[in-house]
Amino acid sequence: MESPPAETRERYPYWVSIPTRWMDGDPYGHVNNAQYYSFVDTAVTRMLYDKRVLGAPESESIGLCVESGCRFLAPVTFPESIDAGVRLGRVGNSSLRYEVGLFKEGEATPAAVAFFAHVFVDPQTRRPVPLSEEIKAAMRALMLAA
Amino acid sequence: MESPPAETRERYPYWVSIPTRWMDGDPYGHVNNAQYYSFVDTAVTRMLYDKRVLGAPESESIGLCVESGCRFLAPVTFPESIDAGVRLGRVGNSSLRYEVGLFKEGEATPAAVAFFAHVFVDPQTRRPVPLSEEIKAAMRALMLAA
Amino acid sequence: MESPPAETRERYPYWVSIPTRWMDGDPYGHVNNAQYYSFVDTAVTRMLYDKRVLGAPESESIGLCVESGCRFLAPVTFPESIDAGVRLGRVGNSSLRYEVGLFKEGEATPAAVAFFAHVFVDPQTRRPVPLSEEIKAAMRALMLAA
Amino acid sequence: MESPPAETRERYPYWVSIPTRWMDGDPYGHVNNAQYYSFVDTAVTRMLYDKRVLGAPESESIGLCVESGCRFLAPVTFPESIDAGVRLGRVGNSSLRYEVGLFKEGEATPAAVAFFAHVFVDPQTRRPVPLSEEIKAAMRALMLAA
Repeated sequence: MESPPAETRERYPYWVSIPTRWMDGDPYGHVNNAQYYSFVDTAVTRMLYDKRVLGAPESESIGLCVESGCRFLAPVTFPESIDAGVRLGRVGNSSLRYEVGLFKEGEATPAAVAFFAHVFVDPQTRRPVPLSEEIKAAMRALMLAA
Repeated sequence: MESPPAETRERYPYWVSIPTRWMDGDPYGHVNNAQYYSFVDTAVTRMLYDKRVLGAPESESIGLCVESGCRFLAPVTFPESIDAGVRLGRVGNSSLRYEVGLFKEGEATPAAVAFFAHVFVDPQTRRPVPLSEEIKAAMRALMLAA
Repeated sequence: MESPPAETRERYPYWVSIPTRWMDGDPYGHVNNAQYYSFVDTAVTRMLYDKRVLGAPESESIGLCVESGCRFLAPVTFPESIDAGVRLGRVGNSSLRYEVGLFKEGEATPAAVAFFAHVFVDPQTRRPVPLSEEIKAAMRALMLAA
Repeated sequence: MESPPAETRERYPYWVSIPTRWMDGDPYGHVNNAQYYSFVDTAVTRMLYDKRVLGAPESESIGLCVESGCRFLAPVTFPESIDAGVRLGRVGNSSLRYEVGLFKEGEATPAAVAFFAHVFVDPQTRRPVPLSEEIKAAMRALMLAA
């Protein structure tokens, strides 16, 4: 397991605030690992709604998660709040890969770093649907500058 | 708060087994109160699928929860498994009220007793849809004998 | 089922903002009924931390939920945010009953009205522990004026 | 993204059955991606309780998730039930890496393949605690034969 990159807040262009809920904690007293993925899923989907990739009347496709992963660097405890930073890692023809940093409010280093990959499909046929050039441009604007 | 009725397993005609999940526990070490409602919701919906009230091709309506409540009588701890007993409390024209007992595996007295009320509506208009006589008969068969 | 009281925002003195998460939605497209209880649980626990009833070094007890209930008045859909209003309904010797209104951001009438009752117990013996006079006074200050 | 290995049921020596819950589904109608991690977490923790790595009176440590990941191969829909197969991928001095296949009941190919890594720590100091030789032997017995 290589060491995670030194992820800082500057590396994420899009932010969503996610307060923890009492139920997020598990019997060890900290937010359960699976809930981190719910934070990632929520941050990504909020961004996609905001950018009208999903949820808009003209949206023709839905995003299916095909792969995800997370490195857990520090525990999170209720009632702490999470700032979830989202950037795009890869913009494909009908897929997007996001990189998400979960930071505790006020902290400079992340509590977790995750990735999440969507394939966009037709809700009926579940076949991949290409993203429009407009959406691809909006998503590329959320990539790290080279 | 009046004392809960002496609920025993014999008073529930339909059963669903629900193993607890690690994440169900909250920082106090026991299954979180909101998760009990997920057990109730799951038991009721499994019964409705089984009796073809929901999920069947001919189903024309969906069930919206309009009211629920629960008395918590004993803690539940992972990896315990729950036996959820379901009976019908009331069969209305377009509504059903369920009474659900949550028993730990092997125990004679419930860890919780709950109720849950559905109104059946058209998924598009959200207007109430009457239940068929066939469904009402199937549901009445799950009521306690008078 | 009597009609719920006309609950308005003025009737709740303590507020917690709870953004919905993508995962809160169920296959009917709206926030699942059990998640409403997670909102209630979170709002109450946030208030108790804030008022130092729980989570403070001097806290000697934990709150066990003994009863809850909810009337569901309107669907909630991601990415809507919930304003949860909390008031005290009853202040007992070792118990508290809360009344919680869940309002969609910007709306004057609630999407749901709930109650939730805690008994405070010793974490080891699970025997009831009396609340201090200081805590009881702080909680009475959150009751509706007579 | 390389193609996932051809995972079959034979490659997993330990099994846990996890019925889906109604609430697991998200607005797209299928079990939400984050819930798969709850299935993984539950299967691993059930195995660890069963093998007395966790939860036994002599247990001196708790397992913290440090990394996980999942490839999603097929949707899962309520009320389907999941058979979660667990094997050990790596047995370290104070860490374990599990490989988990999630199969729908009756299916030969997985709906998802995941990994999950625990570091075992002292619950107070959060410092790593070595696993006993007895536990390491029990875990190695769950690795794939070379």
